[in-house]
Amino acid sequence: MSSSSHESAFLMSPDFTLSQPPLGKPARLGILASGSGSNFEAIAHAIESGELNAQIVVVVYNNPGAKVTLRAERLGIPARLLDHRTFDSREALDEAITRVFDEYGVNWVVMAGWMRRVTEKLLSAFPQRILNIHPSLLPSFPGIRAVEQAIAAGVKIAGCSVHYVELVVDSGPMIAQAAVPVLANDTVATLQARIQVQEHRLFPLAIAIALEQAS
Amino acid sequence: MSSSSHESAFLMSPDFTLSQPPLGKPARLGILASGSGSNFEAIAHAIESGELNAQIVVVVYNNPGAKVTLRAERLGIPARLLDHRTFDSREALDEAITRVFDEYGVNWVVMAGWMRRVTEKLLSAFPQRILNIHPSLLPSFPGIRAVEQAIAAGVKIAGCSVHYVELVVDSGPMIAQAAVPVLANDTVATLQARIQVQEHRLFPLAIAIALEQAS
Repeated sequence: MSSSSHESAFLMSPDFTLSQPPLGKPARLGILASGSGSNFEAIAHAIESGELNAQIVVVVYNNPGAKVTLRAERLGIPARLLDHRTFDSREALDEAITRVFDEYGVNWVVMAGWMRRVTEKLLSAFPQRILNIHPSLLPSFPGIRAVEQAIAAGVKIAGCSVHYVELVVDSGPMIAQAAVPVLANDTVATLQARIQVQEHRLFPLAIAIALEQAS
Repeated sequence: MSSSSHESAFLMSPDFTLSQPPLGKPARLGILASGSGSNFEAIAHAIESGELNAQIVVVVYNNPGAKVTLRAERLGIPARLLDHRTFDSREALDEAITRVFDEYGVNWVVMAGWMRRVTEKLLSAFPQRILNIHPSLLPSFPGIRAVEQAIAAGVKIAGCSVHYVELVVDSGPMIAQAAVPVLANDTVATLQARIQVQEHRLFPLAIAIALEQAS
Protein backbone atom coordinates (compact mmCIF):
# COMPACT_ATOMS: atom_id res chain seq x y z
CA MET A 1 0.00 0.00 0.00
CA SER A 2 1.24 3.42 -0.83
CA SER A 3 1.87 5.59 2.19
CA SER A 4 1.53 9.33 2.58
CA SER A 5 5.04 9.51 4.02
CA HIS A 6 7.75 8.94 1.45
CA GLU A 7 10.30 7.90 4.01
CA SER A 8 8.34 4.98 5.37
CA ALA A 9 6.76 3.78 2.15
CA PHE A 10 7.69 0.29 1.04
CA LEU A 11 6.28 -2.87 -0.47
CA MET A 12 7.47 -6.30 0.60
CA SER A 13 6.66 -9.60 -1.09
CA PRO A 14 5.86 -12.27 -0.08
CA ASP A 15 3.84 -10.71 2.70
CA PHE A 16 5.23 -13.09 5.30
CA THR A 17 5.15 -12.38 9.02
CA LEU A 18 7.78 -13.67 11.42
CA SER A 19 5.90 -14.61 14.55
CA GLN A 20 5.80 -18.29 15.33
CA PRO A 21 8.88 -19.96 13.93
CA PRO A 22 8.40 -23.62 13.12
CA LEU A 23 9.47 -25.99 15.85
CA GLY A 24 12.36 -28.34 15.37
CA LYS A 25 16.09 -27.97 15.39
CA PRO A 26 17.28 -24.40 14.78
CA ALA A 27 19.06 -23.92 11.46
CA ARG A 28 22.80 -23.44 11.89
CA LEU A 29 23.72 -20.35 9.89
CA GLY A 30 27.19 -19.54 8.63
CA ILE A 31 27.46 -15.86 7.69
CA LEU A 32 29.77 -14.55 4.97
CA ALA A 33 30.46 -10.81 5.24
CA SER A 34 32.87 -8.35 3.70
CA GLY A 35 31.80 -5.06 5.26
CA SER A 36 29.94 -3.62 8.21
CA GLY A 37 27.71 -6.62 8.78
CA SER A 38 24.52 -4.69 9.46
CA ASN A 39 22.48 -7.43 7.82
CA PHE A 40 24.26 -9.99 9.98
CA GLU A 41 23.19 -8.02 13.05
CA ALA A 42 19.59 -7.70 11.80
CA ILE A 43 19.47 -11.51 11.43
CA ALA A 44 20.96 -11.94 14.92
CA HIS A 45 18.28 -9.67 16.37
CA ALA A 46 15.49 -11.59 14.61
CA ILE A 47 16.88 -14.77 16.16
CA GLU A 48 17.23 -13.20 19.62
CA SER A 49 13.66 -11.96 19.55
CA GLY A 50 12.45 -15.49 18.76
CA GLU A 51 11.24 -14.65 15.26
CA LEU A 52 13.61 -16.93 13.40
CA ASN A 53 14.31 -20.52 14.40
CA ALA A 54 18.05 -20.39 13.76
CA GLN A 55 21.44 -19.86 15.32
CA ILE A 56 24.38 -18.00 13.82
CA VAL A 57 27.26 -20.33 14.59
CA VAL A 58 30.11 -18.53 12.83
CA VAL A 59 30.88 -15.45 10.75
CA VAL A 60 33.55 -15.65 8.04
CA TYR A 61 34.89 -12.33 6.75
CA ASN A 62 37.54 -11.59 4.14
CA ASN A 63 38.69 -8.04 4.91
CA PRO A 64 40.98 -7.66 7.95
CA GLY A 65 39.43 -4.31 8.88
CA ALA A 66 35.76 -5.29 8.40
CA LYS A 67 33.51 -3.82 11.09
CA VAL A 68 31.56 -7.06 11.16
CA THR A 69 34.11 -8.36 13.70
CA LEU A 70 33.02 -5.71 16.23
CA ARG A 71 29.41 -6.74 15.85
CA ALA A 72 30.32 -10.43 16.15
CA GLU A 73 32.29 -9.75 19.31
CA ARG A 74 29.43 -7.76 20.82
CA LEU A 75 27.00 -10.56 19.93
CA GLY A 76 29.33 -13.29 21.22
CA ILE A 77 29.53 -15.03 17.85
CA PRO A 78 32.84 -16.49 16.60
CA ALA A 79 34.33 -14.60 13.65
CA ARG A 80 37.01 -16.03 11.37
CA LEU A 81 39.14 -14.05 8.95
CA LEU A 82 39.79 -15.75 5.60
CA ASP A 83 41.61 -13.07 3.64
CA HIS A 84 41.05 -13.78 -0.05
CA ARG A 85 44.43 -12.20 -0.82
CA THR A 86 46.13 -15.13 0.91
CA PHE A 87 44.52 -17.76 -1.32
CA ASP A 88 45.72 -18.86 -4.75
CA SER A 89 42.25 -19.08 -6.28
CA ARG A 90 38.57 -18.51 -5.65
CA GLU A 91 38.25 -22.28 -5.30
CA ALA A 92 40.89 -22.39 -2.58
CA LEU A 93 39.07 -19.65 -0.64
CA ASP A 94 35.77 -21.50 -0.98
CA GLU A 95 37.39 -24.73 0.24
CA ALA A 96 38.69 -22.93 3.30
CA ILE A 97 35.24 -21.45 3.94
CA THR A 98 33.71 -24.90 3.64
CA ARG A 99 36.19 -26.31 6.15
CA VAL A 100 35.35 -23.58 8.70
CA PHE A 101 31.63 -24.09 8.14
CA ASP A 102 31.99 -27.86 8.53
CA GLU A 103 33.92 -27.31 11.75
CA TYR A 104 30.95 -25.34 13.14
CA GLY A 105 28.26 -27.63 11.73
CA VAL A 106 26.82 -24.96 9.44
CA ASN A 107 23.86 -26.12 7.35
CA TRP A 108 22.78 -22.80 5.76
CA VAL A 109 25.09 -20.15 4.29
CA VAL A 110 24.00 -16.51 4.40
CA MET A 111 25.87 -13.93 2.34
CA ALA A 112 25.36 -10.68 4.20
CA GLY A 113 27.35 -8.29 2.05
CA TRP A 114 29.86 -10.86 0.75
CA MET A 115 31.77 -9.26 -2.10
CA ARG A 116 33.49 -12.38 -3.49
CA ARG A 117 32.21 -14.53 -6.34
CA VAL A 118 31.37 -18.06 -5.29
CA THR A 119 32.58 -21.18 -7.05
CA GLU A 120 31.24 -24.70 -7.46
CA LYS A 121 33.27 -25.66 -4.38
CA LEU A 122 30.94 -23.76 -2.06
CA LEU A 123 27.80 -24.37 -4.13
CA SER A 124 28.29 -28.13 -4.12
CA ALA A 125 29.02 -28.17 -0.38
CA PHE A 126 25.72 -26.37 0.36
CA PRO A 127 23.38 -27.17 -2.53
CA GLN A 128 20.40 -24.77 -2.53
CA ARG A 129 21.36 -23.64 0.92
CA ILE A 130 23.22 -20.42 0.13
CA LEU A 131 21.29 -17.15 0.30
CA ASN A 132 22.36 -13.71 -0.88
CA ILE A 133 20.93 -10.21 -0.53
CA HIS A 134 21.35 -7.66 -3.30
CA PRO A 135 20.41 -3.96 -3.14
CA SER A 136 18.22 -3.84 -6.25
CA LEU A 137 14.97 -5.22 -7.57
CA LEU A 138 16.63 -7.99 -9.55
CA PRO A 139 16.90 -8.63 -12.47
CA SER A 140 17.49 -4.85 -12.66
CA PHE A 141 21.00 -3.74 -11.69
CA PRO A 142 22.96 -6.90 -10.91
CA GLY A 143 26.64 -6.60 -10.02
CA ILE A 144 28.48 -3.95 -8.10
CA ARG A 145 27.23 -0.45 -7.28
CA ALA A 146 23.59 -1.44 -7.71
CA VAL A 147 22.30 1.68 -5.95
CA GLU A 148 24.49 3.91 -8.12
CA GLN A 149 23.14 2.07 -11.17
CA ALA A 150 19.56 2.73 -10.02
CA ILE A 151 20.22 6.44 -9.46
CA ALA A 152 21.94 6.71 -12.86
CA ALA A 153 19.03 4.95 -14.59
CA GLY A 154 16.56 7.38 -13.05
CA VAL A 155 14.18 4.71 -11.77
CA LYS A 156 11.42 5.84 -9.42
CA ILE A 157 11.25 2.58 -7.49
CA ALA A 158 14.29 0.75 -6.12
CA GLY A 159 14.65 -2.05 -3.61
CA CYS A 160 16.40 -5.21 -2.54
CA SER A 161 16.21 -8.92 -3.27
CA VAL A 162 17.08 -12.13 -1.42
CA HIS A 163 17.75 -15.13 -3.65
CA TYR A 164 19.34 -18.56 -3.69
CA VAL A 165 22.90 -18.30 -4.97
CA GLU A 166 23.95 -19.77 -8.31
CA LEU A 167 27.19 -19.46 -10.27
CA VAL A 168 26.08 -16.38 -12.20
CA VAL A 169 26.38 -13.32 -9.95
CA ASP A 170 23.04 -12.02 -8.59
CA SER A 171 20.98 -14.65 -10.33
CA GLY A 172 19.28 -17.69 -8.80
CA PRO A 173 15.70 -18.31 -7.67
CA MET A 174 14.12 -15.35 -5.88
CA ILE A 175 12.89 -15.73 -2.32
CA ALA A 176 11.66 -12.26 -1.39
CA GLN A 177 11.91 -8.64 -2.54
CA ALA A 178 11.17 -5.24 -1.07
CA ALA A 179 10.55 -2.01 -2.99
CA VAL A 180 11.07 1.59 -1.86
CA PRO A 181 10.52 4.91 -3.66
CA VAL A 182 13.41 6.88 -5.13
CA LEU A 183 12.89 10.50 -4.14
CA ALA A 184 13.66 13.52 -6.31
CA ASN A 185 16.55 14.70 -4.16
CA ASP A 186 18.04 11.28 -3.45
CA THR A 187 21.77 10.68 -3.47
CA VAL A 188 23.33 7.23 -3.55
CA ALA A 189 23.76 7.52 0.23
CA THR A 190 20.15 8.46 1.02
CA LEU A 191 18.70 5.83 -1.29
CA GLN A 192 21.10 3.22 0.07
CA ALA A 193 20.01 4.06 3.61
CA ARG A 194 16.33 3.69 2.65
CA ILE A 195 17.02 0.34 0.98
CA GLN A 196 19.03 -0.90 3.98
CA VAL A 197 16.10 -0.33 6.33
CA GLN A 198 14.19 -2.82 4.17
CA GLU A 199 17.16 -5.19 3.84
CA HIS A 200 17.20 -5.56 7.60
CA ARG A 201 13.51 -6.52 7.59
CA LEU A 202 13.64 -8.61 4.42
CA PHE A 203 16.62 -10.83 5.10
CA PRO A 204 15.32 -12.54 8.28
CA LEU A 205 11.94 -13.02 6.58
CA ALA A 206 13.59 -14.52 3.50
CA ILE A 207 15.66 -16.89 5.61
CA ALA A 208 12.50 -18.03 7.38
CA ILE A 209 10.83 -18.61 4.01
CA ALA A 210 13.83 -20.61 2.74
CA LEU A 211 13.85 -22.74 5.91
CA GLU A 212 10.16 -23.40 5.47
CA GLN A 213 10.61 -24.29 1.79
CA ALA A 214 13.34 -26.79 2.70
CA SER A 215 11.45 -28.41 5.56
CA MET B 1 3.66 0.94 2.81
CA SER B 2 3.09 -2.76 2.90
CA SER B 3 -0.52 -3.75 3.32
CA SER B 4 -2.04 -6.72 5.07
CA SER B 5 -4.12 -7.49 2.00
CA HIS B 6 -2.10 -8.86 -0.89
CA GLU B 7 -4.62 -7.81 -3.48
CA SER B 8 -4.52 -4.13 -2.67
CA ALA B 9 -0.83 -3.77 -1.83
CA PHE B 10 1.14 -1.46 -4.06
CA LEU B 11 3.82 1.19 -4.03
CA MET B 12 3.68 4.20 -6.33
CA SER B 13 6.48 6.69 -6.91
CA PRO B 14 6.57 9.66 -7.08
CA ASP B 15 3.87 10.01 -4.46
CA PHE B 16 1.96 12.58 -6.47
CA THR B 17 -1.70 13.37 -5.90
CA LEU B 18 -4.04 14.53 -8.63
CA SER B 19 -6.33 17.08 -7.05
CA GLN B 20 -5.89 20.61 -8.28
CA PRO B 21 -4.60 20.55 -11.82
CA PRO B 22 -2.56 23.62 -12.77
CA LEU B 23 -4.53 26.36 -14.46
CA GLY B 24 -3.89 27.32 -18.05
CA LYS B 25 -4.77 25.77 -21.36
CA PRO B 26 -5.56 22.06 -21.17
CA ALA B 27 -2.97 19.83 -22.84
CA ARG B 28 -4.26 18.38 -26.12
CA LEU B 29 -3.58 14.65 -25.96
CA GLY B 30 -3.33 12.37 -28.96
CA ILE B 31 -3.70 8.72 -27.91
CA LEU B 32 -2.05 5.82 -29.74
CA ALA B 33 -3.64 2.45 -28.98
CA SER B 34 -3.47 -1.05 -30.41
CA GLY B 35 -5.73 -3.00 -28.09
CA SER B 36 -8.59 -2.57 -25.66
CA GLY B 37 -7.72 0.98 -24.66
CA SER B 38 -8.36 0.56 -20.94
CA ASN B 39 -5.56 3.02 -20.18
CA PHE B 40 -7.09 5.46 -22.63
CA GLU B 41 -10.36 5.22 -20.71
CA ALA B 42 -8.61 5.66 -17.36
CA ILE B 43 -7.03 8.87 -18.64
CA ALA B 44 -10.40 10.06 -19.97
CA HIS B 45 -11.95 9.48 -16.55
CA ALA B 46 -9.16 11.39 -14.78
CA ILE B 47 -9.86 14.31 -17.14
CA GLU B 48 -13.63 14.09 -16.66
CA SER B 49 -13.29 14.14 -12.90
CA GLY B 50 -11.20 17.30 -13.14
CA GLU B 51 -7.98 15.68 -11.94
CA LEU B 52 -5.98 16.20 -15.10
CA ASN B 53 -5.90 19.48 -17.02
CA ALA B 54 -6.05 17.93 -20.46
CA GLN B 55 -8.33 16.96 -23.30
CA ILE B 56 -8.11 13.82 -25.44
CA VAL B 57 -8.62 15.23 -28.92
CA VAL B 58 -8.12 12.09 -31.00
CA VAL B 59 -7.33 8.38 -30.72
CA VAL B 60 -5.28 6.71 -33.43
CA TYR B 61 -5.41 2.92 -33.54
CA ASN B 62 -3.76 0.45 -35.90
CA ASN B 63 -5.81 -2.73 -35.61
CA PRO B 64 -9.18 -2.67 -37.38
CA GLY B 65 -10.83 -4.74 -34.67
CA ALA B 66 -9.38 -2.90 -31.66
CA LYS B 67 -11.88 -2.47 -28.84
CA VAL B 68 -10.56 1.00 -28.23
CA THR B 69 -12.98 2.26 -30.90
CA LEU B 70 -15.96 1.22 -28.75
CA ARG B 71 -14.57 3.16 -25.80
CA ALA B 72 -13.84 6.20 -27.98
CA GLU B 73 -17.37 6.13 -29.36
CA ARG B 74 -18.84 5.88 -25.86
CA LEU B 75 -16.66 8.78 -24.73
CA GLY B 76 -17.42 10.88 -27.81
CA ILE B 77 -13.78 11.08 -28.86
CA PRO B 78 -12.80 10.83 -32.55
CA ALA B 79 -10.95 7.61 -33.41
CA ARG B 80 -8.90 7.17 -36.58
CA LEU B 81 -7.70 3.86 -37.97
CA LEU B 82 -4.19 3.90 -39.42
CA ASP B 83 -3.60 0.26 -40.24
CA HIS B 84 0.16 -0.31 -40.24
CA ARG B 85 -0.29 -3.06 -42.85
CA THR B 86 -1.28 -0.40 -45.38
CA PHE B 87 1.95 1.59 -45.02
CA ASP B 88 5.24 0.90 -46.76
CA SER B 89 7.40 1.61 -43.73
CA ARG B 90 7.38 2.53 -40.07
CA GLU B 91 8.30 6.06 -41.14
CA ALA B 92 5.30 6.32 -43.45
CA LEU B 93 2.98 5.23 -40.63
CA ASP B 94 4.54 7.78 -38.28
CA GLU B 95 4.13 10.52 -40.89
CA ALA B 96 0.46 9.67 -41.23
CA ILE B 97 0.06 9.71 -37.43
CA THR B 98 1.74 13.11 -37.30
CA ARG B 99 -0.61 14.47 -39.97
CA VAL B 100 -3.68 13.30 -38.00
CA PHE B 101 -2.27 14.73 -34.79
CA ASP B 102 -1.50 18.04 -36.48
CA GLU B 103 -5.02 18.15 -37.85
CA TYR B 104 -6.38 17.87 -34.29
CA GLY B 105 -3.83 20.22 -32.73
CA VAL B 106 -2.28 17.49 -30.55
CA ASN B 107 0.60 18.68 -28.38
CA TRP B 108 1.22 15.57 -26.28
CA VAL B 109 1.29 11.97 -27.52
CA VAL B 110 0.23 9.17 -25.16
CA MET B 111 0.95 5.58 -26.07
CA ALA B 112 -1.72 3.59 -24.28
CA GLY B 113 -0.87 0.07 -25.39
CA TRP B 114 0.65 1.00 -28.74
CA MET B 115 2.42 -2.04 -30.10
CA ARG B 116 4.37 -0.39 -32.95
CA ARG B 117 7.95 0.86 -32.75
CA VAL B 118 8.26 4.60 -33.20
CA THR B 119 10.68 6.28 -35.60
CA GLU B 120 12.45 9.62 -35.68
CA LYS B 121 9.51 10.94 -37.72
CA LEU B 122 7.20 10.89 -34.70
CA LEU B 123 9.92 11.67 -32.15
CA SER B 124 11.03 14.80 -33.98
CA ALA B 125 7.42 15.98 -34.44
CA PHE B 126 6.80 15.72 -30.67
CA PRO B 127 10.19 16.10 -28.97
CA GLN B 128 10.00 14.98 -25.34
CA ARG B 129 6.24 14.95 -25.58
CA ILE B 130 5.59 11.26 -26.15
CA LEU B 131 4.76 9.09 -23.15
CA ASN B 132 4.55 5.31 -22.95
CA ILE B 133 3.38 2.86 -20.31
CA HIS B 134 5.05 -0.53 -19.94
CA PRO B 135 3.88 -3.39 -17.69
CA SER B 136 7.15 -3.95 -15.82
CA LEU B 137 9.45 -2.20 -13.40
CA LEU B 138 11.87 -1.05 -16.10
CA PRO B 139 14.72 -1.64 -16.78
CA SER B 140 13.56 -5.19 -15.95
CA PHE B 141 11.62 -6.95 -18.71
CA PRO B 142 11.53 -4.53 -21.65
CA GLY B 143 9.91 -5.64 -24.89
CA ILE B 144 6.92 -7.83 -25.49
CA ARG B 145 5.27 -10.17 -22.99
CA ALA B 146 6.69 -8.30 -20.00
CA VAL B 147 4.31 -9.96 -17.55
CA GLU B 148 5.18 -13.41 -18.89
CA GLN B 149 8.85 -12.50 -18.52
CA ALA B 150 8.27 -11.50 -14.89
CA ILE B 151 6.44 -14.74 -14.09
CA ALA B 152 9.17 -16.78 -15.81
CA ALA B 153 11.92 -14.95 -13.88
CA GLY B 154 10.18 -15.70 -10.59
CA VAL B 155 10.31 -12.13 -9.29
CA LYS B 156 8.31 -11.37 -6.16
CA ILE B 157 7.60 -7.76 -7.07
CA ALA B 158 6.33 -6.63 -10.48
CA GLY B 159 4.82 -3.38 -11.67
CA CYS B 160 4.51 -0.80 -14.40
CA SER B 161 6.42 2.23 -15.64
CA VAL B 162 5.57 5.43 -17.51
CA HIS B 163 8.46 7.01 -19.39
CA TYR B 164 9.29 9.48 -22.13
CA VAL B 165 9.71 7.63 -25.41
CA GLU B 166 13.07 7.36 -27.16
CA LEU B 167 14.16 5.32 -30.16
CA VAL B 168 15.18 2.28 -28.13
CA VAL B 169 12.05 0.35 -27.13
CA ASP B 170 11.03 0.78 -23.47
CA SER B 171 13.89 3.10 -22.65
CA GLY B 172 13.74 6.85 -22.09
CA PRO B 173 13.60 8.96 -18.92
CA MET B 174 11.31 7.54 -16.26
CA ILE B 175 8.37 9.59 -15.02
CA ALA B 176 6.63 7.29 -12.55
CA GLN B 177 6.50 3.64 -11.50
CA ALA B 178 4.18 1.44 -9.47
CA ALA B 179 5.03 -1.87 -7.82
CA VAL B 180 2.75 -4.76 -6.90
CA PRO B 181 3.45 -8.13 -5.28
CA VAL B 182 3.61 -11.33 -7.31
CA LEU B 183 1.61 -13.95 -5.42
CA ALA B 184 2.50 -17.62 -5.14
CA ASN B 185 -0.42 -18.80 -7.26
CA ASP B 186 -0.28 -16.03 -9.87
CA THR B 187 -0.78 -16.72 -13.54
CA VAL B 188 0.10 -14.24 -16.28
CA ALA B 189 -3.57 -13.23 -16.32
CA THR B 190 -3.93 -12.61 -12.57
CA LEU B 191 -0.65 -10.71 -12.36
CA GLN B 192 -1.54 -8.69 -15.45
CA ALA B 193 -4.87 -7.75 -13.90
CA ARG B 194 -3.15 -6.60 -10.70
CA ILE B 195 -0.66 -4.52 -12.69
CA GLN B 196 -3.43 -2.99 -14.81
CA VAL B 197 -5.22 -1.68 -11.73
CA GLN B 198 -2.05 0.31 -11.01
CA GLU B 199 -1.56 1.30 -14.67
CA HIS B 200 -4.95 3.00 -14.59
CA ARG B 201 -3.89 5.04 -11.54
CA LEU B 202 -0.32 5.63 -12.64
CA PHE B 203 -0.81 6.86 -16.19
CA PRO B 204 -2.97 9.95 -15.40
CA LEU B 205 -0.56 10.83 -12.55
CA ALA B 206 2.44 10.47 -14.83
CA ILE B 207 0.83 12.65 -17.50
CA ALA B 208 0.19 15.31 -14.86
CA ILE B 209 3.83 15.10 -13.76
CA ALA B 210 5.05 15.40 -17.35
CA LEU B 211 2.79 18.42 -17.97
CA GLU B 212 4.12 20.02 -14.82
CA GLN B 213 7.74 19.29 -15.81
CA ALA B 214 7.19 20.94 -19.20
CA SER B 215 5.40 24.01 -17.88
